[in-house]
Formats: sequence, structure tokens, C-alpha cells
Amino acid sequence: DEVAKLLELKAQLSCENGEIQKFTLKTAKGTRDFSPQQMAIRENVFTKIIGVFKRHGAETIDTPIFELKEVLTGKYGEDSKLIYDLKDQGGEILSLRYDLTVPFARYLAMNKITNIKRYHIAKVYRRDNPSITRGRYREFYQCDFDIAGAYDPMIPDAECVRVVQEILESLDIGPFLIKLNHRLLLDGMFAACGVPQDKFRSICSAVDKLDKSPWDEVRKEMVSEKHLAEDVADKIGQYVQMNGKLELVEKLLSDTNLTKIPAAVEGLEAMKLLLDYCDLYGVKDKVIFDLSLARGLDYYTGVIYEAVLLGDTKIEDPANSVGSIAGGGRYDNLVGMFDAKHKQVPCVGVSIGIERIFAVIEAKLLSGPDKVRTTEIEVYVASAQKNLINERMKICKELWDEGIKAEQSYKKNPKLLAQLQHCEEYGIPLAIVLGESEIQKGIVKLRNVLTRNEVEVPRTKLVDEIRKHLKTSHTNGSS
Amino acid sequence: DEVAKLLELKAQLSCENGEIQKFTLKTAKGTRDFSPQQMAIRENVFTKIIGVFKRHGAETIDTPIFELKEVLTGKYGEDSKLIYDLKDQGGEILSLRYDLTVPFARYLAMNKITNIKRYHIAKVYRRDNPSITRGRYREFYQCDFDIAGAYDPMIPDAECVRVVQEILESLDIGPFLIKLNHRLLLDGMFAACGVPQDKFRSICSAVDKLDKSPWDEVRKEMVSEKHLAEDVADKIGQYVQMNGKLELVEKLLSDTNLTKIPAAVEGLEAMKLLLDYCDLYGVKDKVIFDLSLARGLDYYTGVIYEAVLLGDTKIEDPANSVGSIAGGGRYDNLVGMFDAKHKQVPCVGVSIGIERIFAVIEAKLLSGPDKVRTTEIEVYVASAQKNLINERMKICKELWDEGIKAEQSYKKNPKLLAQLQHCEEYGIPLAIVLGESEIQKGIVKLRNVLTRNEVEVPRTKLVDEIRKHLKTSHTNGSS
Repeated sequence: DEVAKLLELKAQLSCENGEIQKFTLKTAKGTRDFSPQQMAIRENVFTKIIGVFKRHGAETIDTPIFELKEVLTGKYGEDSKLIYDLKDQGGEILSLRYDLTVPFARYLAMNKITNIKRYHIAKVYRRDNPSITRGRYREFYQCDFDIAGAYDPMIPDAECVRVVQEILESLDIGPFLIKLNHRLLLDGMFAACGVPQDKFRSICSAVDKLDKSPWDEVRKEMVSEKHLAEDVADKIGQYVQMNGKLELVEKLLSDTNLTKIPAAVEGLEAMKLLLDYCDLYGVKDKVIFDLSLARGLDYYTGVIYEAVLLGDTKIEDPANSVGSIAGGGRYDNLVGMFDAKHKQVPCVGVSIGIERIFAVIEAKLLSGPDKVRTTEIEVYVASAQKNLINERMKICKELWDEGIKAEQSYKKNPKLLAQLQHCEEYGIPLAIVLGESEIQKGIVKLRNVLTRNEVEVPRTKLVDEIRKHLKTSHTNGSS
Repeated sequence: DEVAKLLELKAQLSCENGEIQKFTLKTAKGTRDFSPQQMAIRENVFTKIIGVFKRHGAETIDTPIFELKEVLTGKYGEDSKLIYDLKDQGGEILSLRYDLTVPFARYLAMNKITNIKRYHIAKVYRRDNPSITRGRYREFYQCDFDIAGAYDPMIPDAECVRVVQEILESLDIGPFLIKLNHRLLLDGMFAACGVPQDKFRSICSAVDKLDKSPWDEVRKEMVSEKHLAEDVADKIGQYVQMNGKLELVEKLLSDTNLTKIPAAVEGLEAMKLLLDYCDLYGVKDKVIFDLSLARGLDYYTGVIYEAVLLGDTKIEDPANSVGSIAGGGRYDNLVGMFDAKHKQVPCVGVSIGIERIFAVIEAKLLSGPDKVRTTEIEVYVASAQKNLINERMKICKELWDEGIKAEQSYKKNPKLLAQLQHCEEYGIPLAIVLGESEIQKGIVKLRNVLTRNEVEVPRTKLVDEIRKHLKTSHTNGSS
């Protein structure tokens, strides 16, 4: 401990003496900074998503970035090893949050909240093996929408589907499909096929891999690794390769092998109701009932969702997906895990795969012809001659007072060319160009940066003229 | 390690079996959740502040919540002990960020950025002794605006003052004053008074306490604890009790005791220029040159700022402040600490004391007569009779399709009274009330929740009518 203190002191002194720290300048493994361009894109995406959440009346909450370690314990199965712990510096044992769902459940139980519709967009942390190419980071955003409360079947569940559809439509990232399934149906199907009860979860995880692996491989895992009888695996295989709409529900409801299991019937009836509601909510074309959808997390108890982006070819083939971009489901027992009296608060929700969406949009925008603007400056206050800093400042003040977004060079005597280049680089639509003779005449030059057109405007009418010009360029869509 | 694994497994199993975890349900010490009401207030404040940053052309960036521990080492002096470290789970040694300034400097050096104007609003972490009553938490937001780049004296520095002024005005939290001083002048003053060079920093920290303690106590600290000669302390005392405007700069510029120290002259000339620029930027009335302003952080090299909220009595007395709500200054050497070739990037910036501002505004709003709305729902879709869920869903779909913010009960057959109470509780301005007979006639009832007025509207004109009503209630300011 003494040594540590001395080392710290030494490091401190060496810095104060202007010595340079000798270590690689980098962000922590699996994390990254976001540039102004990336942030501008993110802000735009967040605004659209939050717009949808607000259209559906969601409130938002926030929770701390770390929780008591005990809060997270036993919620993530095998993935618990990926949780970041804080160092024990005396006091409580803390961990960084792994998702937003467990803190949400903790929040509900702690505050005895029995119904809420909330969204939460925030960073979560996983000590996963980062894969930059696949866009997997150790620090990343989650973007959750959940409805908690004891309500009637499938009404909140259907709204989650509608919310996903509105978000993906508004982001304009190409065709997508929302896969639907039900945990009760999965369990019922496993029972009908003869899977032993204690193997339900592990067989379920195997099924979950069907979006990446072909059936043959999944079957091999079931038989060789998980010691399932071959004929049982084959029966599962027949079911999990089915997908469709209401007609598939009807078909399965006449499958006596399945309907002898009450859970299966319950799951199928729920699917039927959900599909009806999806129809009423206008999302019929975007949903597909898919028996291969399993989802890894243990806490789901009812409907499960997963939205996938489709490639350019046939939309109707769900195997033709380029990846999951949203997922969720019903989890009726999670909040009760935090309540001393086991009091349950039923919940259903979806998590938007915002990082994947960012990656898609970023790639599209940064390779496109248009520059991403990182500021919203409307007017740049430039000077064509020396010693006009005071005059520039007065005009900036006037514009700021009027709420106009304006800036100027921080140099006393900047070159005109450098000032105009700044305007072009940042996509600023208008520039005021100040000169001695104009000042004496009580006018300023207002320049359209794109067309390079200049008009002379009386100083007293400057603000009005700027407003007029901005309005025109907005309606022309050129800003 | 084996034992740990077994314990984890046990915890997991007990959860899966529906057993309840036995620990106090709480957030980590010094942290807290934010309710929808608090979040609504925060969002409103952030929107105003970001509006000012954008009016000044600031871009935004983001950095990870943790950094390599080495990045933070030697930047915070004595406060380093308050840094949260992450547990060593193999790999890099990491710490949670302590402020946004050091990560910003690291970002500039790492990306070789030599000029940028950026804002950053994000959470930082300090293992301080939390004081809930004084609003001091271990997780809290910082809200920084900084201008990096080699520019001409005081031009970016003056804009920081203007930004603080615009923010505090826009938040409408009462009278305030922005204190200004200069590190070179402080150093020059210490030299002029005969403080030994090696005591500059510790005497500076003592001066920093003058906003909370009277001069007598600060003097005692200087003499008894820091072993400064009594006559030297008395000389300091004469200076640090001065404050004023340009006339004070002029007076000090004629103080030969001070002007024999080049640093003091340089600091005074800088203050003069800054006050001139503040005048041009229209913030003359809000600034005061205050020789007692010192600020604790070691890395300041030029101008330093601190904004204080004033009490209700005399505005001109800076001692009459209810607390610091913004602070900052120039730090020209911090970025160079991260550069292998000592390359400096001069910076100046301010940090808005957002948590203190939240506390002030929250207290005002939550004790006021108006409810803080936590959602933006414009229309609630209610039904007066049973079995109208499908009809409600169709109308919701129609409204969402048109971008109208709408919601309905998640119960199949909710009571009308409960539905209308929900509208009042959440401040929803309009409700659609569905009934069998109206549906048959092709109309719906549109109800103004506040006035309880109801009008019958043809289904086909519903959206138009809603838009019209919302417009009226907006212009009446009643929403």
C-alpha cells in the first residue's frame, strides 16, 4: 500500500514537471470514442426512436450505471462471467449493469410500481470478446421499451410489435420481418416431442442457434452434446422448420400430438390473439409466426419477438436475414425475484439493437454523397478586412440574442478564404461578410455559401433578412 | 475460485427455483434512480442547454465511461483517491472517469485534433462522501463546453462567458454573477506579496476557500497550517478582498508593487481584454472581476470562471451567493501531457453545474401548482362500453399512422371513469370516447379533458379535428 502511494506520487510529480506519461494512448479494450459525425448520426437515430416511444406514451427513467453485485447475480445464466465488477475499495460490492431489464425490474420492485410504460436508452457493459468487424463492443447502447402491469392478454404485447414496426419504418433501413413465437408453445412442443423436462432449457438454447446454423448442425448438438434421443430430435426438427401466419396456428391447433399438451394449446391460442391484434394494428405484413424462434434468455415466460433485416431478394424467406436488430418478449416473473413477498409484476418489452442499426446507417451515410452536418450553425460572421473583431462580436451578439445559430473565427484577423472554407466544410448555409465601407454605409453583405450569391442588407434589417433566407433554404430542402 | 463458482451456481439455482434473494433492495451508495418526473425535468433542462451549445456551433463527442487507469493518474492531485477502479478481471486496469475534461484531452491527443468546439453531457464518478442534502452524489452529470485551438487572446474565453450567461438566462433560475480571474494574476500577486514559489499552489487552494469561509479563517490556514509569514498573508488579504470591473483592472495596473511582476501585468492586460469583449458580447452586467476566485484544479493556466446564483437581497455583493453553478477556465497544457512530443493544444472551457441546477428547478417545479407531464400523449382512446377493444385498436392505428401521440387502456373492458382519470393524471388534453351507437352512426365523441366539453366528430374527419383542437389548446397555452 505504501509502495502504491509512492508510485502514484511519483507519477503525479512527473506529470507536474511536464514529463510525458509513457503508455499507449488508447481507449479500453472493446470500447471506442464517438466523433462529432458519429454523434450527429446517433442523435438523429435517437430522435426518431424516441419520437416513436413518445407517440406511444412511454415515460423514461434512469438507473445508475452500477448496481449491487447481488442484484445481477443469478439473472444471466452462463453469461454472468461477462459482468464487469468494480474493485473492492471498501464498502459495497458493485458491478456494471449488463442490460437495462434487470435494473428496470429492480426499480419496479424497490419502488413498488405495479404499472408503467417506459423507455430507457443507455449504455450497458459486457466483458465479451470484442469483435469490431461484427460490431460487438464491451460498452454499447441498449434501447428498451417495456410495458409493466397486469393487463389483458396480448394487448401490450401487440403494441410492442407495432412499436418495433414504427421504429424500423421510420429509420428507413430496408425490408424487415418481425418473428413471433411463444415460450409456452416451445415448452409444449418439447413435451409433445418427448424431451425430458430437465432438458427443456438446454434444448431451447440449441433451437436458438437455428438463425445462424442449419438444422443438421443443431440436431447434432441435441443428439451428441445434449444426449437427446434421435427420434425426439427429428420430431423437433419437423416443428422448428415451420413458419407462417394464422393458417399455421390453425394447422397446429389440429395437431392432436401437440394439443394433448395444455401449454401448447395455451401458447397457440395466445399466438392467434396476437396475430389478430397485429392485423388491427396494421403490422400483419411485417410479422411471421416462426417456431424456430427461441431466444436465449431464461426469463421469458410468454411471447417472444425478434426483428431481422432482410437481404435484397425474396422478403418472405426468413432464412434470408442479415441479422437480428430487435428482440424481446414477456417476462412475468423477473420483478417478483426482487420482492420479499414474491409479488409479481407482469412485463413485456422489446430491445432495439441500436448499435447494429447505427452501423448500418453510418455505413450508408458515410459512403453517400452528402456530408453529415455536425453543427447547426445558420450564419457565419466573417470579415473581409483586418481589425473588425469588435464589429463581428457585436453582430454575433445581435444574432445570438435573436436565437440565431451563429459563429465566427476565433482569430482576430482571419483570412477571408479560410472563413469561407470553414462555411463549406461545415455546411453553413449563410455568411455575413463585413467590410469597412459597408459598415460606414450601414449595410452588410449576406452571402449564400452554396450559390455564392451576395446581397447587400441594411444592418437594421439583418435579422429579418436572415430569417427569410433560412426559411427559403429550408423549404428548398437544401439545408 | 471453485468455491466462488459453486456459490454463484447456488444463487442461480435458488433464483430459478423461485426463491427470493435475501439482500436489501437499494441502489449503490451515493447513487439514485430517476423517476419519470425527474427525467422530464432533466430532459427539459438538457434541451435548453444543448440549444445554447448549438447556437454557438458546438459539436458533441462521446468517450467511454471507463479509461485506462494510467490516463487518469496524476491529473487530480489529492482527489485521485476518489477515483473508482474496476476489478482486475484479467486484461487492462481500468477506472471510471472522474470528469469529462481529462477524457477530452486524451481524445484530442489520440486523434491529433488541434481545434474543435465541443460539448459533452455525461455521467462521471467520484467515491466522495455522498451528501444527499447538499446534492452531492457519487454518480452525477457533467455538462461541459470547451474550445480547443491556438487562437487569439480572450476571443474563445469571452464566448465561454457568453455561453454561461445564455444558459443561466434561459433556465430562469434567478439572478447570478459570473466571477472572473486569471491564474497569471494570482501567481503574480503571490509573488508580489512575497509568497515563496513552492507555496503558490497550496496558498492558491487556501484562497479557493474564500467563497465558503471568511478571510480570518483562510488567513489562519495560511499562517498556522501552511507556515506563511503573517505580513505576507496580510498583503494577500488586501488583494483577495477586492472585486470590481474595468476600473479595478486600471487601479491594479497602477499598483507598482504588482506591476513589477511581469505575470501580474500579463494577467491584468488579459482581464482588461476579456472585460472589453464581455461588453461587446452584452454580458457586462453579469461579470465581476474577483481576486478571491482561485479554483482548485491544478491544470488551469489562464482565465478562470465561476458562476454563482445570488440570493434575493443585494445583487452586487458577491459574498451573498447561494452556490457555484458553473465553473471553468483555460488549460493550455493538459492535452500535451498525452502527446509523445509534448504538442500542446490550448483549451478553454466551462462546466455547467447541472446537478445543482436540476435540484433548484426540481424543487421549484415539484412544489409549484402545475403538474410535470411525463408523457406527450395528445389523445387517449377510451371506450364507454364493453367489447370495443378492436375498434379502439383501429383508431389507435389510424392516429399513430398520422403521427399523433395516442394511447389506450391495456385492459379489454376498462371502466370509463378509470380511463378519464388516467387522462387527468397524465395531463392528456383530448380523449376519444367510443360507444356502440356512435360507431353505427359513423361518428366519435371528442372530449376536452380539462373543460369536459364533448363534440361529435365524423370518423372520416377525426384526424383533422384532433389537429385543429391541439392547435387551439397549444395557442391557448393550456397544454
